[in-house]
Amino acid sequence: MIELFLIGIGTGNPDHVTRQAEKAINACDLILVPLKGEDKADLAGLRLAICRSCITNPDTRVETFDLPQRDPAVPDYLARVTDWHDAIAACWIAAIDRHRKAGGGGRVGLLVWGDPSLYDSTLRIAERVAAHIPLRQRVIPGITAIQALCAAHAVPFNDLGAPVLVTTGRRLRDHGWPEGCTTLVVMLDAGGAFATLTGAEYDIWWGAYVGMEGEILIAGPLATAGPEILARRQQARAAHGWIMDIYLLRRRAVPGPQARVS
Amino acid sequence: MIELFLIGIGTGNPDHVTRQAEKAINACDLILVPLKGEDKADLAGLRLAICRSCITNPDTRVETFDLPQRDPAVPDYLARVTDWHDAIAACWIAAIDRHRKAGGGGRVGLLVWGDPSLYDSTLRIAERVAAHIPLRQRVIPGITAIQALCAAHAVPFNDLGAPVLVTTGRRLRDHGWPEGCTTLVVMLDAGGAFATLTGAEYDIWWGAYVGMEGEILIAGPLATAGPEILARRQQARAAHGWIMDIYLLRRRAVPGPQARVS
Repeated sequence: MIELFLIGIGTGNPDHVTRQAEKAINACDLILVPLKGEDKADLAGLRLAICRSCITNPDTRVETFDLPQRDPAVPDYLARVTDWHDAIAACWIAAIDRHRKAGGGGRVGLLVWGDPSLYDSTLRIAERVAAHIPLRQRVIPGITAIQALCAAHAVPFNDLGAPVLVTTGRRLRDHGWPEGCTTLVVMLDAGGAFATLTGAEYDIWWGAYVGMEGEILIAGPLATAGPEILARRQQARAAHGWIMDIYLLRRRAVPGPQARVS
Repeated sequence: MIELFLIGIGTGNPDHVTRQAEKAINACDLILVPLKGEDKADLAGLRLAICRSCITNPDTRVETFDLPQRDPAVPDYLARVTDWHDAIAACWIAAIDRHRKAGGGGRVGLLVWGDPSLYDSTLRIAERVAAHIPLRQRVIPGITAIQALCAAHAVPFNDLGAPVLVTTGRRLRDHGWPEGCTTLVVMLDAGGAFATLTGAEYDIWWGAYVGMEGEILIAGPLATAGPEILARRQQARAAHGWIMDIYLLRRRAVPGPQARVS
């Protein structure tokens, strides 16, 4: 029986690591760190840096593995992602099998960007692994990009007693503003789905690399902040080779300009 | 100029504290800890325990204050909460003024249950304080009850690429299941708003005191788990004198029994 620790580490700020994550890392015999290819080398680097700064247990070993890529030849989004999860599960299984054959112990950990439950594939991949290897899952919560975004802007997630829809760029682009909502948090946006919204009633709080050293924050009425964000996003993406961004949108009841740029 | 640190500390597990929170606590000259009255004495106790376990700076002082109560005579919910926030802001202002008059430094911290942005009044109270005292706000994100719930059940927050509505018990009770949603996370439920949902298509993942020592977890089809939750909730509330609970609801496309009790 393998105990599989899925350990949330926050959004790239090594100080997002909780005491619980630190203890879980040190409880593991093996930490698996995916390498994501050239463009995201700094993400693997951050995971390794967190390992270096946290690990005090001499028996905790760190091993990297090459993360499979999504196959762009699969046209359907869900099928493409599902195939990709299968391929990653196969990598985990191979690594765990090698570890066990080499006499390694039963506690294996994966460091998960942000939190394992939030728009992350780790729990779904672990389910596939559990079909091959008897597993007990332990999930350690982490600081999410949502919390890091709201903290950076010092903006509440929700209006008083009001709901918030957490959604994806794809859905905002395809379905527009969801009826009855006043606040959206948009994740996994391949680029500027907010630009499909027109009108003066929207405010945006946007962040890229939130919590990390290169954090960029822009907020204000969408009509003026939107174009600025698109330009900064393109620049930053070119400079870093990759981008992770997230934003909160609020629809005001009464249209009109409102100065909230920070 | 006061630097006001709003420090997320997670949901009661002292190991939810991040390195960033630990550093922020030690950067403060004064940590204000609200006392919530007899029934929630253990929450104040947990805040004080976190202070004791984190503070290494001899210049960081901890001061408690009596948290005002909401006035049940104000019939309107939003008005009642708004008045309450005004009263709490007055307490903060008085404490900060005393601290400054006694020659205290300019860094004041408040430890926020969960995360300061998520269904929490701290940012709104800080805004009121800023109208009286020149303030610079620093928000430190924390582990939310949502993350702690999903981690405890090892359940993803979202279906693949799908949205999630984070809402309140009051709204679920008053407005029913929101059209077009498949996943809801319900917070601030005064008691069993899920019981207004009928039908076999709902699954629930419920937790009380999530992350804390007395954590209670129940999951399964709502039709069978719902009554069990209501009974456990009532028992637990009577035993502790208070309860904090949260749940995730998912609506299945095809009604039918599904064993997911954990």
